[in-house]
Amino acid sequence: MKVYKIPEATVIRLSIYSRQLHYLKDAGVETVSSEEIANSVGVSSAQVRKDLAYFGEFGTRGVGYKVEELLGYLTKILGLDQQWNIVIVGAGKLGSALALYQGFRERGFAISAILDSDENKVGESLDDIVIEPMDVLESRVKEHGINIGIITVPAMNAQDVTDLLVQAGVNAILNFSPRVLKVPADIILRNVDLSVNLKVLSFNLSYNR
Amino acid sequence: MKVYKIPEATVIRLSIYSRQLHYLKDAGVETVSSEEIANSVGVSSAQVRKDLAYFGEFGTRGVGYKVEELLGYLTKILGLDQQWNIVIVGAGKLGSALALYQGFRERGFAISAILDSDENKVGESLDDIVIEPMDVLESRVKEHGINIGIITVPAMNAQDVTDLLVQAGVNAILNFSPRVLKVPADIILRNVDLSVNLKVLSFNLSYNR
Repeated sequence: MKVYKIPEATVIRLSIYSRQLHYLKDAGVETVSSEEIANSVGVSSAQVRKDLAYFGEFGTRGVGYKVEELLGYLTKILGLDQQWNIVIVGAGKLGSALALYQGFRERGFAISAILDSDENKVGESLDDIVIEPMDVLESRVKEHGINIGIITVPAMNAQDVTDLLVQAGVNAILNFSPRVLKVPADIILRNVDLSVNLKVLSFNLSYNR
Repeated sequence: MKVYKIPEATVIRLSIYSRQLHYLKDAGVETVSSEEIANSVGVSSAQVRKDLAYFGEFGTRGVGYKVEELLGYLTKILGLDQQWNIVIVGAGKLGSALALYQGFRERGFAISAILDSDENKVGESLDDIVIEPMDVLESRVKEHGINIGIITVPAMNAQDVTDLLVQAGVNAILNFSPRVLKVPADIILRNVDLSVNLKVLSFNLSYNR
């Protein structure tokens, strides 16, 4: 896994700030303070300022940030000013749910293809995307300029699918399977553990009660 | 949303450390340093020590942490030494995927019920769980001692479902819908945005390249 100078926790917070700024913009709010951003997200205002300071000077002391301007910067910093094309491998329930997830489409992520090795699934439609067989992977990656592969296959098949994705030319992989995957050093790998969210709840339910 | 003294980012990291310690334990590793934990997770070793320091003194200088002992502490801190019973409302693709997600079952979370307002879905089986109608919500919560509700309904129905969950007696809600929800102050609410993971990838793909 490649190591970056910007801490991952900062990137996650920037992404949460950007979502909050979207809400504020939609609500017609024009300026916001670091305190207001901090309160809505649950971090300190010093943290907000520190996170933003990695990328330059934003905002005016005593006035705050212009919502639309800061949102524009964050969009650019997060690489969301361009469209990212995605292939999902594994058209089971989770893969299908992700293919249909509105939150991806709204934020510049396009599901360009969804593949499955199960012949019975191939040909089925998920909205406007048709499930295709695995052997079209490489041609779809080239054709659509796909950068990101999402893995939603069973754990036992996850490394094989990873190797195929790397060979086909994707640069980044989002792994929803519980398997620890090996990738070349130049491939960005991110493992998603959906149970983390429940663990935060269980902590809050059991701590301080 | 209730505010806790322990930063949420710390709780998320503790959860990631615990997953890493599970891997180490399964691999037969007996002791681990804060540097090793830090490297495998992508934070600084000072961060690991700071996160753990909220809860007491762990480990021995120059020796490190005993994997099984630290895992035991973290399990207790995260409230994972007890079983949490969960109801999922919304048996669409995402709800069904979560009901079948092995990562929940392995970590002390039990899906006790899955409900849907669609009569056509009621009666269908997801492994050993049968989809039930909404009107059994309150009795299932009481019967199974359900603490956590997961919302996977469309955005337009999410607030109504939230109100029903609160009325039925759940203490915490995990919201996968893109709707901002209102809950009483004593209810713990956590919103999941699956696109955050893709944003971290898009940042890494566009930054420093």
